[in-house]
Amino acid sequence: MHHDFKPSKYFTTIGSHEPVLRISSGDSVSTTTVDAAGCDATGEQITERGNPMTGPFYIEGADVGDTLKVDLTQLRPNRNQGYSGKMLAPNVVDPEYVPNLPWPKADEARWAQWQVDIAANTATLLETESLKGSLELTLEPMLGCFGVAPPRGQAISTATSAEHGGNMDYRGFKENITVYFPVFTEGALFHLGDGHALQGDGEMAGTGIEISMDVTFKVELIKGKEISWPRGENDDFIFTVGNARPLDQATQHATTEMLRWLINDFGFDPQTANILMGQAVRYELGNMFDPAYTFVCKMPKRVGSVKLVKD
Amino acid sequence: MHHDFKPSKYFTTIGSHEPVLRISSGDSVSTTTVDAAGCDATGEQITERGNPMTGPFYIEGADVGDTLKVDLTQLRPNRNQGYSGKMLAPNVVDPEYVPNLPWPKADEARWAQWQVDIAANTATLLETESLKGSLELTLEPMLGCFGVAPPRGQAISTATSAEHGGNMDYRGFKENITVYFPVFTEGALFHLGDGHALQGDGEMAGTGIEISMDVTFKVELIKGKEISWPRGENDDFIFTVGNARPLDQATQHATTEMLRWLINDFGFDPQTANILMGQAVRYELGNMFDPAYTFVCKMPKRVGSVKLVKD
Amino acid sequence: MHHDFKPSKYFTTIGSHEPVLRISSGDSVSTTTVDAAGCDATGEQITERGNPMTGPFYIEGADVGDTLKVDLTQLRPNRNQGYSGKMLAPNVVDPEYVPNLPWPKADEARWAQWQVDIAANTATLLETESLKGSLELTLEPMLGCFGVAPPRGQAISTATSAEHGGNMDYRGFKENITVYFPVFTEGALFHLGDGHALQGDGEMAGTGIEISMDVTFKVELIKGKEISWPRGENDDFIFTVGNARPLDQATQHATTEMLRWLINDFGFDPQTANILMGQAVRYELGNMFDPAYTFVCKMPKRVGSVKLVKD
Amino acid sequence: MHHDFKPSKYFTTIGSHEPVLRISSGDSVSTTTVDAAGCDATGEQITERGNPMTGPFYIEGADVGDTLKVDLTQLRPNRNQGYSGKMLAPNVVDPEYVPNLPWPKADEARWAQWQVDIAANTATLLETESLKGSLELTLEPMLGCFGVAPPRGQAISTATSAEHGGNMDYRGFKENITVYFPVFTEGALFHLGDGHALQGDGEMAGTGIEISMDVTFKVELIKGKEISWPRGENDDFIFTVGNARPLDQATQHATTEMLRWLINDFGFDPQTANILMGQAVRYELGNMFDPAYTFVCKMPKRVGSVKLVKD
Repeated sequence: MHHDFKPSKYFTTIGSHEPVLRISSGDSVSTTTVDAAGCDATGEQITERGNPMTGPFYIEGADVGDTLKVDLTQLRPNRNQGYSGKMLAPNVVDPEYVPNLPWPKADEARWAQWQVDIAANTATLLETESLKGSLELTLEPMLGCFGVAPPRGQAISTATSAEHGGNMDYRGFKENITVYFPVFTEGALFHLGDGHALQGDGEMAGTGIEISMDVTFKVELIKGKEISWPRGENDDFIFTVGNARPLDQATQHATTEMLRWLINDFGFDPQTANILMGQAVRYELGNMFDPAYTFVCKMPKRVGSVKLVKD
Repeated sequence: MHHDFKPSKYFTTIGSHEPVLRISSGDSVSTTTVDAAGCDATGEQITERGNPMTGPFYIEGADVGDTLKVDLTQLRPNRNQGYSGKMLAPNVVDPEYVPNLPWPKADEARWAQWQVDIAANTATLLETESLKGSLELTLEPMLGCFGVAPPRGQAISTATSAEHGGNMDYRGFKENITVYFPVFTEGALFHLGDGHALQGDGEMAGTGIEISMDVTFKVELIKGKEISWPRGENDDFIFTVGNARPLDQATQHATTEMLRWLINDFGFDPQTANILMGQAVRYELGNMFDPAYTFVCKMPKRVGSVKLVKD
Repeated sequence: MHHDFKPSKYFTTIGSHEPVLRISSGDSVSTTTVDAAGCDATGEQITERGNPMTGPFYIEGADVGDTLKVDLTQLRPNRNQGYSGKMLAPNVVDPEYVPNLPWPKADEARWAQWQVDIAANTATLLETESLKGSLELTLEPMLGCFGVAPPRGQAISTATSAEHGGNMDYRGFKENITVYFPVFTEGALFHLGDGHALQGDGEMAGTGIEISMDVTFKVELIKGKEISWPRGENDDFIFTVGNARPLDQATQHATTEMLRWLINDFGFDPQTANILMGQAVRYELGNMFDPAYTFVCKMPKRVGSVKLVKD
Repeated sequence: MHHDFKPSKYFTTIGSHEPVLRISSGDSVSTTTVDAAGCDATGEQITERGNPMTGPFYIEGADVGDTLKVDLTQLRPNRNQGYSGKMLAPNVVDPEYVPNLPWPKADEARWAQWQVDIAANTATLLETESLKGSLELTLEPMLGCFGVAPPRGQAISTATSAEHGGNMDYRGFKENITVYFPVFTEGALFHLGDGHALQGDGEMAGTGIEISMDVTFKVELIKGKEISWPRGENDDFIFTVGNARPLDQATQHATTEMLRWLINDFGFDPQTANILMGQAVRYELGNMFDPAYTFVCKMPKRVGSVKLVKD
C-alpha cells in the first residue's frame, strides 16, 4: 500500500514520539522533508532549526529484536535554492591552523547560497572571489539524518547519531539505496530529514548543500532478525555503519558489524571472513563534524571469485 | 639518466644512512624490493624482517626546504607466492569482540599463503574452509612503505610513518602515481620497500599480500618548494597524506595540507577553497594498523566547473 | 526549607520527565537512591537496572541560561552489601591483551560481592584467590550519576554523560562537594543516583562498589549565570568537568571551561590565566568506561601567591 | 663507584649514539643538563635547541631483555632564571576556542620569564597584567625527558616518547623517584635532560618552567627481567607509564603494564588483580602536548589490607 503523507509537525530528536502515521511492512510512503534550518519547499521556515524530522512512522508489528529494511526509492530536492557552510569545521584541521580558517566577519552572512537547477542537475555557488565565474557542481541528492527510535526510551538529538542511525551524513545514502536498522522499540518509529543536494565526504564544512526534499521510501519488516548497527546495500556493495567518536571507534563498530554479517548471514567461517576483509574491504567517511562521527565499512558483492549474494 | 641498481643491504629504519647510490634530478632507477619479511624474488630470506628498505638514494642538490617528486613508473611482483595475515588486527574491532577473532592456534601457521599469477593478474588463497573452492582476487600491486630521511637526524622504524612518509600502506600508491615528499636532509635520501600484490583499505589484517617486487621510479627535485606532508596526484585526483594516531589527527593533517595546496599553489582565496572542499572532497584510508594511521584527502582535478590543473 | 522525599518511581534517562517534587532555591532534600541494578536498601530489586535515577526535582524559577548549584551535604551507603565488576573493561587495556583478561566462565557469577561495614568504614571482598585472606578497602562514598535535563527535549541514557552531567563516575563527587550545572530547561529538573561505596579512578572495572544510598542535597539557583559544562569546588580546589570520547576531547572541554572561569569570573587577563594554568593545573579521571569519558580539570584555590576565592 | 661527568656534546634524539661514559651497575653519576633551548647554568646557549640530552651512558653488561633501574637521587635547578610558554597548546582546548587563545603578537616575546630562587624554593613570574603583583609558585623540580636507546637502531626525537621513555614530562619524575626502563640495546644507553623547575599536569603550555639542572642518578641492572613500558616507584606508589596518542591508547599501555606487574611480579591471580585495580587504581597525566601523550597508572603500596611490597 502506498501512502502520501504531508507532515504538519517535526521533531529535533529521534525518540518515542507519538507516531504521525501507522504503516505496514511492504508499504511505501511519499512525503517531504524540510531542510536543516526548518525551511520547506517554498523557502519559508516552518519549524525550529536543527535537522527537524518528518515522522515518526509506526510500522505495524515491529518490535525489539527485529530489523527494519528501508528502501530510499526517490530522493529529490524540491526547490531551487540551498545553502552550505563557508568554512571547514575547526575540528578537521590542525589545531594550530584553526585561526587561519576563513572565520566569517561579524557583518558577513554565515552561509553560502547555491542556485540549484534540478533539470540541469547542477548547484551553482552564488558568490565567490577567486573562481572568477561560477562554481558549478553536479547534484548528488542524499539524506543526512534518518533512523529509528533508540532504546531505553531515549530521545537523541538529530545533531548526532548512534546505533539507531540519526545524523550520519553519508554520501552513500542516496536514491536506490537500501538501509537496515535494528528495531529498539515497538513500531520501530522511523524518522527522516536533513536532505543534501550534494555533499563532500565527511561533511567537513558542517553542512552539505542543505535543501528540502520530496522523498519516497518503502519499508519491510524482518521479524526476529537482530543486527547491532545500521547496514545497507546497493547493486555493488554491502556496507555497515559505525557512529561514534573518535573515528577509530566508529571504524571498530562498522568493521565488527561487517564480520558478524559475513559470518552469521553469508556463512563464512571466521578465518576466511577475516582474510577476505583484510584484502578486499573498503571504507568511506560519513560525517566528521557531528558529536558522533560516521565511518562506513564496505564489501564488494562481487570480488574476484567471491559473490556476496544471498539466494 | 637511467640506473639499474641491485641492492646488497637493507635498512629497517628510514634515516640518514649511508646512501647506496647518488642520482640526479630527472634520473630514473630500476631496482628490487624484498617483502616485509626480508624475502627476495626467490623466496629466500636475505635480510632481517620488518619492512626492509632498498636505498637510500641520494639526490644531488636536494636540501632542506625542497620537495622531492617521485613517479612510480613500474611496480611488479617478481615471484609467484605471497602471504597475508589471517586475522583482522585487534585494534580495528570492538574491544569486547577481540576474543571472538580467529586467533591462530599454537600449532597453526601464522600466515595465509597466496598463489600469485602475474600473467593472469590474480592471487589465489591456498587454503580456506568456507569458500568451498578458491578465493581468487585481482592483483593491484602497490608500495606499502617509502619516503625520505626525517628531520633532526632521526631514524624512524619502517613499522610506522610521519611527515617523511614511511609505512603508509595506502592502496593508491600504485603504478603511475606521482608522490611529493618534503626534503628534510641533504640529498633527501629516498628509501622504498614493502610491496603488496593487493591490499584492502586500512591494511586491516596487518598485511597486504606481501611480496617482493621489481620497481622503477623517477625522481625530480623541486628546489625551494616547501610542503608539510606527502602529496600526490594521478590523472584524476590530487591528494595529501596525513600520518598520525588517532585517525582524527591523520585527517586533520591531510585536510590542512590540502587547504594549503589549494590556497598557495592553485590560487584559491581561503573561503572559496573551504567551500569547494566542503562539497567536493573525498577521503581514503591508508593503514589503520601501524603505530601511525594514514588518511588521505583527495580532490578531483575536474569537478563541475573547476579544474585543478596548473598551467 | 527541608524536604524528606521517598521515591516511588525511577528513570533510566535524564530528561524532561514529570517532576516528582517542586522545590525552591535554598531548599534541601533528603532522599534515597537505588544502586545501578535497581536494588534498594533492603537489597531488593524494585526497578529496572541501568542507573535508575531518583527525581527529577523541579527548581522553581530555574530557566535556560541559569546555573544550578548543588551541595552534596550527605552521602551514605544504606545497606551492608555492594557489588563490583570482576574484570577491567576491554577498552582500557591494549587490544591484543583483551583475551588475557579474566573473562568470567559461563557458570560463574558476573559480579564480585563486598561486605560493607559503615561503622568501620570498610568494604571487604567476599571472595578472592590470591590475597590469602581478606581484601579490605576504606569507603569513600560518591555519587556516580547526577545532573539536569539536557537541551532540546532530549532524554539521555544514564549510561552516559554530556554537558548536563549524567554518568560521570568521578571520585571527587563525594560528601561536601559543590557542583554547578548549566540549566537547559524550565525547572532545571535535577536527577540523582548510582551511588558507589568506593571506586578507583576511571571506573576501570565498569563499576565502583555499587550500593544504595541515603543522600541529602541542597540547591541554589544562580539566575542569569551561564556556564557550558559542570563545574565544582571544595575547600581546596575549583574544578571543571568535560564529558566526551575520546579522553582528548573530554580534556579539551574541561580545560576550555576552566579558562572561561578564570577569565570571566576571577578577572584574569587571558595571558595570565594561560600562564597560571600551564604551571599549576591538575587533572583527574572520572570514568573511562561509559560511552562518554569524564576528565576533570582542577585549579588549587591557593597556589603560591594566588588565591582563587571570590569576595 | 661515583662518576662526575661534565658533558661536552648533546643529542636531540635518543638513539644508539656513541656513549659518552661507560659505567657499571651500582654506579652513580653527577652531571648537568642544559634546558630545552640548549642553555646551560650560565644562561648561554651552547647547543641546538629541542631538549638536548646529556649522555648516552653505557651500562656495562646491559643487553636486550634486561631492565635498567634508575634512581634520581638529586635534581636541582642550577641557575636563577627559567622560561615558560605564555599560551596553552591549541590541541588542549576546544577547536572552536583556539582563536580566543592569547596568541602572542608579532612583536611580542614568545616566552614568559621567571625568577627562580632556589633558597626560597620559589619561581616568580617577571611580568603579568592581571595579578597586580607577583605570581609566585613553589618549585617542584622534575626531569622532562630521559630514557634508553629504542629498539631496531631507531633514533627517536626528544620531542616525543615511546616504550624507551623520552619526553614524558611527568610531574612525578622528581627527586627520590625510581624509574625502570626496558633495555633494547647493548649497554642500554641512558640519556637525560629537559629539566623543569615546576610544571602543571599535562605540560599544557608546552613547557614547564624550563631550566638547566645539576642531576645525580644511580643505575642498577636487573638481568633477565623483561618489562614492556617504563615503570617506577616511590615510598607510596608503584606506577607504570604509557606513551602514545591519543590519551586513550596511553592509558591502555599503562593499565596493561600494571596488570602484568601485579600478576607476574606480585603474585596476584588475574581476577584479584583486576578487582583490586578497579577499586584502587589512580591515574596522572604526564604531557598532553608532545606527539605522544603520557598517562601514568598508579597503585598505592598500602591500600586497605593490601601491601604491594616485595620481600
